[in-house]
Amino acid sequence: MLEELKKKVLAANLELVTQGLVIYTWGNVSGIDRESGLMVIKPSGVPYSELKAEDMVVVDLNGRVVEGRLRPSSDTPTHIVLYKAFPTIGGVVHTHSTYATAWAQAGLAIEPLGTTHADYFHGPVPCTEGLGDARTEGDYEAETGNVIVECFKGLDPVHTPGVLVRNHGPFCWGASPAEAVYHSRVLEEVAKMNFITLSLNPGASIPAKLIEKHFLRKHGPGATYGQK
Amino acid sequence: MLEELKKKVLAANLELVTQGLVIYTWGNVSGIDRESGLMVIKPSGVPYSELKAEDMVVVDLNGRVVEGRLRPSSDTPTHIVLYKAFPTIGGVVHTHSTYATAWAQAGLAIEPLGTTHADYFHGPVPCTEGLGDARTEGDYEAETGNVIVECFKGLDPVHTPGVLVRNHGPFCWGASPAEAVYHSRVLEEVAKMNFITLSLNPGASIPAKLIEKHFLRKHGPGATYGQK
Amino acid sequence: MLEELKKKVLAANLELVTQGLVIYTWGNVSGIDRESGLMVIKPSGVPYSELKAEDMVVVDLNGRVVEGRLRPSSDTPTHIVLYKAFPTIGGVVHTHSTYATAWAQAGLAIEPLGTTHADYFHGPVPCTEGLGDARTEGDYEAETGNVIVECFKGLDPVHTPGVLVRNHGPFCWGASPAEAVYHSRVLEEVAKMNFITLSLNPGASIPAKLIEKHFLRKHGPGATYGQK
Amino acid sequence: MLEELKKKVLAANLELVTQGLVIYTWGNVSGIDRESGLMVIKPSGVPYSELKAEDMVVVDLNGRVVEGRLRPSSDTPTHIVLYKAFPTIGGVVHTHSTYATAWAQAGLAIEPLGTTHADYFHGPVPCTEGLGDARTEGDYEAETGNVIVECFKGLDPVHTPGVLVRNHGPFCWGASPAEAVYHSRVLEEVAKMNFITLSLNPGASIPAKLIEKHFLRKHGPGATYGQK
Repeated sequence: MLEELKKKVLAANLELVTQGLVIYTWGNVSGIDRESGLMVIKPSGVPYSELKAEDMVVVDLNGRVVEGRLRPSSDTPTHIVLYKAFPTIGGVVHTHSTYATAWAQAGLAIEPLGTTHADYFHGPVPCTEGLGDARTEGDYEAETGNVIVECFKGLDPVHTPGVLVRNHGPFCWGASPAEAVYHSRVLEEVAKMNFITLSLNPGASIPAKLIEKHFLRKHGPGATYGQK
Repeated sequence: MLEELKKKVLAANLELVTQGLVIYTWGNVSGIDRESGLMVIKPSGVPYSELKAEDMVVVDLNGRVVEGRLRPSSDTPTHIVLYKAFPTIGGVVHTHSTYATAWAQAGLAIEPLGTTHADYFHGPVPCTEGLGDARTEGDYEAETGNVIVECFKGLDPVHTPGVLVRNHGPFCWGASPAEAVYHSRVLEEVAKMNFITLSLNPGASIPAKLIEKHFLRKHGPGATYGQK
Repeated sequence: MLEELKKKVLAANLELVTQGLVIYTWGNVSGIDRESGLMVIKPSGVPYSELKAEDMVVVDLNGRVVEGRLRPSSDTPTHIVLYKAFPTIGGVVHTHSTYATAWAQAGLAIEPLGTTHADYFHGPVPCTEGLGDARTEGDYEAETGNVIVECFKGLDPVHTPGVLVRNHGPFCWGASPAEAVYHSRVLEEVAKMNFITLSLNPGASIPAKLIEKHFLRKHGPGATYGQK
Repeated sequence: MLEELKKKVLAANLELVTQGLVIYTWGNVSGIDRESGLMVIKPSGVPYSELKAEDMVVVDLNGRVVEGRLRPSSDTPTHIVLYKAFPTIGGVVHTHSTYATAWAQAGLAIEPLGTTHADYFHGPVPCTEGLGDARTEGDYEAETGNVIVECFKGLDPVHTPGVLVRNHGPFCWGASPAEAVYHSRVLEEVAKMNFITLSLNPGASIPAKLIEKHFLRKHGPGATYGQK
């Protein structure tokens, strides 16, 4: 069942290790098959080095396990909320990567300061509001998704493929599980660069036109980057 | 004698290298067999690359070497004090890992600022008082253990599986030698994240309910994380 | 066509990965054959691990592709401007290396603070002016070259083999593609060292005579470093 | 000639790479045979990956090459001054390791803040005065040695096995080339730890008694660390 997607989700999970975005079991990637409405996600708490494609868990968008011997990631309800709210995305990643998590702990959006950022994120990487005590004690993982969705009112999730969940860490997404991991790696690098930048010059900023130029070099009908 | 425990203690010592927590001989792991009351610990000053299981030293809780050709770690008396005071722990680790040691040198507890911290430590990672001149000149290594135990009055060592010894570095513990190393790695990561967080926003904080939620996701009867 | 140069340009591109200066496709190296006036450059958006010598694209100094199946780097017009303006250089590199990019985002020149810097850069590594909205919307990549050239009025590009493009990142150059990569690595290290230095002591500085001494140890007729 | 020492000096130079203390050719190690008064040192500007034991250069304490096809390190006169002034040392290392060099650029001594430091350095790692213009233009490399020796008036070089040369970088030494490299690695780690510590708490300090205790655990007749 969804064997190709399972392989892609496995590969994307292993790429988290290769890219230095996780230690131990501190991250998870999922992918969705939009036709069937089924999601494939990493099992909870299993070390990356032991993961096999057949360990991936198939879950429907009501959170029911459709196939799989193992329990899905404890963050499964967050992934589901994102797939429902953002119909154009195909993969979701959550990590505790060092610098992005530090920004989330600081409760600060990452403002664009350079073209590295603008090549992938068309504006700030926002930081959500806190959940508040009631939602924290309620359906916590789903509410984590809800607080992201609320934060994206008026934003296009394809143009801003990631977010910082306050006091928690980054969630990123993309057209595929692999692209979601790519955006997670970009976010971690930008989070590090901007930490250094603001230590050097707390008043650093970037002209809006430069953000526009770089984002459109890589996205939309006039894109000039790459081989297509 | 205690061959299984020796293998585990060896593996945990080597894991310190794999996890980037030590250079040279700057760390030691021990494990205890509660039934016999005997502790197995790394020999003093031997490079990790040369360590074999049979080099591990068996020591009783009075500090007498029961088996082993080599001298036990110079920190042995600290380990013993911890095993006596914290009867629920099975492994102890001491390192000079970079960020955790920097916090210990700064004389500051690591306050929780995110869920990464709250998943493993149910509140601040405390920093001990200094030993004072008399205890420094006295039975120094045992006094290092005593100052930790004094710092944990009213704290459950299972819920706070590590501490910063002022001007020295971290000690961590766990149900096993492997878990103690795991907690050492978590502490180092949290120490780095929080250093960055506070550089970005000196006033960062976390709601108490969020600490509670994350700690209980991984601990206690209602734990939902992992495969059991 | 230019087979030797293609191999050198390929090797220099792969060295960016070895030296930790790039992730994904975030950098490009070119080399020039001054006799024919032809430039060899990395194709756009192709992963380093898949690059072969025959993938390198040959471009003339009007920006026309002379040989090659793939599209050249999107930064090709910037490279061309530099080769035209700096007739003594043989290789150009652009990266988004972490610390140098952070300085570019901060909009600050890297002032010399030590002999590491002075061994390779005979004065500050300048930071360009911003392009302004009109030039950003115009022939952006060529204007990026123009703003560098304007910044180097009165400077010898051989004595200052690199620059920070504001809100973007570093460009470096050298007698060959390999030397250009070498200068990129030096710049990244100096960018990191100086970030730490200024955090420790915002008033740090270096005597002019010491810059002179170190630069001349490695350059010019009185050079005493190395085997020739 | 001095084949054993050449092997040791080669191994110590390669260890600089293993320990992450150098890039390119940015460091050099020497060793001395006190009986013959001859020094063995790395050749100038040769990549570590190409070094062989027979490439090591034998130099007398007047700076004359006694054996070797290659030119000795350009820092040879500094090494000679140190061997003459500090008769108890057997190996000398110079690097541009990142954090130690940043402290040298900041012009600041590294004050002891923890036991990591006190285990190896019995007090601050001093930072020399600048050379001044006249000495910079004179016999520069020998004057670099002289300024170190002046800085060590009243200090025992065995108890403080390293120094920061202002605006330049660290020199370390030890009983052997290997120990000198060891001290270089310790210094780099302490330089990093203390940078972080002072960012967290600018007023951090350590009691004198604790420095004493840790230094004497590893040195002198009462040493309790290790297997001898």
